[in-house]
Amino acid sequence: MNDPHQRQPASKPQANQRQQALSQFQSFPQPQQPAQQDLHQRLQRNPYQRNLVNQPQSFIPDIQDAVMPPASAVPKQLNFITGNKNKLAEVQAILDGVIELRNKNIDLVEIQGTVEEVVTDKCRRAAEAVNGPVLVEDTCLCFRAMNDLPGPYIKWFMLSLGPLQLHKMLDGFEDKTTQAVCTFAYSEGPDHEPVLFQGKTEGKLVASRGSTVFGWDSCFEYEGKTYAEMEKSEKNKISHRGKALEKLQEWLASRVDG
Amino acid sequence: MNDPHQRQPASKPQANQRQQALSQFQSFPQPQQPAQQDLHQRLQRNPYQRNLVNQPQSFIPDIQDAVMPPASAVPKQLNFITGNKNKLAEVQAILDGVIELRNKNIDLVEIQGTVEEVVTDKCRRAAEAVNGPVLVEDTCLCFRAMNDLPGPYIKWFMLSLGPLQLHKMLDGFEDKTTQAVCTFAYSEGPDHEPVLFQGKTEGKLVASRGSTVFGWDSCFEYEGKTYAEMEKSEKNKISHRGKALEKLQEWLASRVDG
Repeated sequence: MNDPHQRQPASKPQANQRQQALSQFQSFPQPQQPAQQDLHQRLQRNPYQRNLVNQPQSFIPDIQDAVMPPASAVPKQLNFITGNKNKLAEVQAILDGVIELRNKNIDLVEIQGTVEEVVTDKCRRAAEAVNGPVLVEDTCLCFRAMNDLPGPYIKWFMLSLGPLQLHKMLDGFEDKTTQAVCTFAYSEGPDHEPVLFQGKTEGKLVASRGSTVFGWDSCFEYEGKTYAEMEKSEKNKISHRGKALEKLQEWLASRVDG
Repeated sequence: MNDPHQRQPASKPQANQRQQALSQFQSFPQPQQPAQQDLHQRLQRNPYQRNLVNQPQSFIPDIQDAVMPPASAVPKQLNFITGNKNKLAEVQAILDGVIELRNKNIDLVEIQGTVEEVVTDKCRRAAEAVNGPVLVEDTCLCFRAMNDLPGPYIKWFMLSLGPLQLHKMLDGFEDKTTQAVCTFAYSEGPDHEPVLFQGKTEGKLVASRGSTVFGWDSCFEYEGKTYAEMEKSEKNKISHRGKALEKLQEWLASRVDG
């Protein structure tokens, strides 16, 4: 298996910090509030319509086009839209030396759809809201037996069932194959198409084994171990988020101004 | 059990047509296309941002406020936003003699959230899109064992699993209790708060029995029979949609101009 660290540009990054960062980040953190209350509060704080004046006509770009790099370089500073400080710290540490990541907590309502549609939409609105370059992220858990559902709705099922019950969703199905998908979207600003960076890891949904601190880590088994049973550095080499961040990191490193 | 027909205003409706109409309408019709293709096409046709210029600042109304009637009367003609001709015919027939229902097929993207949030948001954007009074509808299936999920996401699970497999979602859970929820939202126009009309029926999720033509009718059991095993008139007296339409009908009848 390739070590993602081998593939990063050798000049700019500070290798020790990067190594440390990769061993720190975790998969999808579990939301802290009940779903209904949380969403209602978010809607009151950030009705998404406010930021949607003067949207360009083309809404969802073709995904193939979207992953093409834009012509211009990315700025040295970038807003990462997240209300989750752990996630911010993880991504910040990974991208250290490549780009300065700042936190903006504008917790946007999400649409229903594929993960690409959800994250592209969120990125567009985030770029409108901050009127500048932004980075957003979304994590899916896709059960093959359910034709890739719950997908982007996994957060609601995690809130409802928790890591100890999640595997019961597949009790009635023989096929336990599950794909973890992490998708980052970057936009230069309100008038630019989001660019997507996606990492996928295929495993199995299992009864919880290991620490239940980090979302569904204890229910997702890859080659005999759950994420929660792996050393962090081991997990981060094969995880959906590790793969997505590696793509993002390389792309940013090759395009940062100056 | 109350017969909903007893509670409708006696003056305006044409009783035979209403009775016939009530016996014709069906529950949640099954979507015809695969989820991903369908949503992508919908997004290309109707990016929701286009209709969101000049939204009022208050986004999601308090649900308690929302169900209060607005001060002014409703118009005699009303746009029902649906791409489903069966659903249109059902609702049109029920409301015949109360209001003239016209079809507008502006198939809007939906947000993630509670059904009240989803349908309120859809109603606001529909009112913007047609620049006038609108009626929209959303149907949920809420498993108690999953803290009311899939809820508004049931359409994606139905598309993925179909009526013959849907019950497998609860194979791992003892509690099969399931609530069917139908929610209509009416708005006078772009500057008016949506008004909600909701009907709920509690039953059980079961292995499919009866015709599989209409969505999850064959998987939802109420007092020993699935919806699909009931006579239409029997079902419509106790169904989630029957209850919601009864509330809507009474409210409209008491407020129609002239």
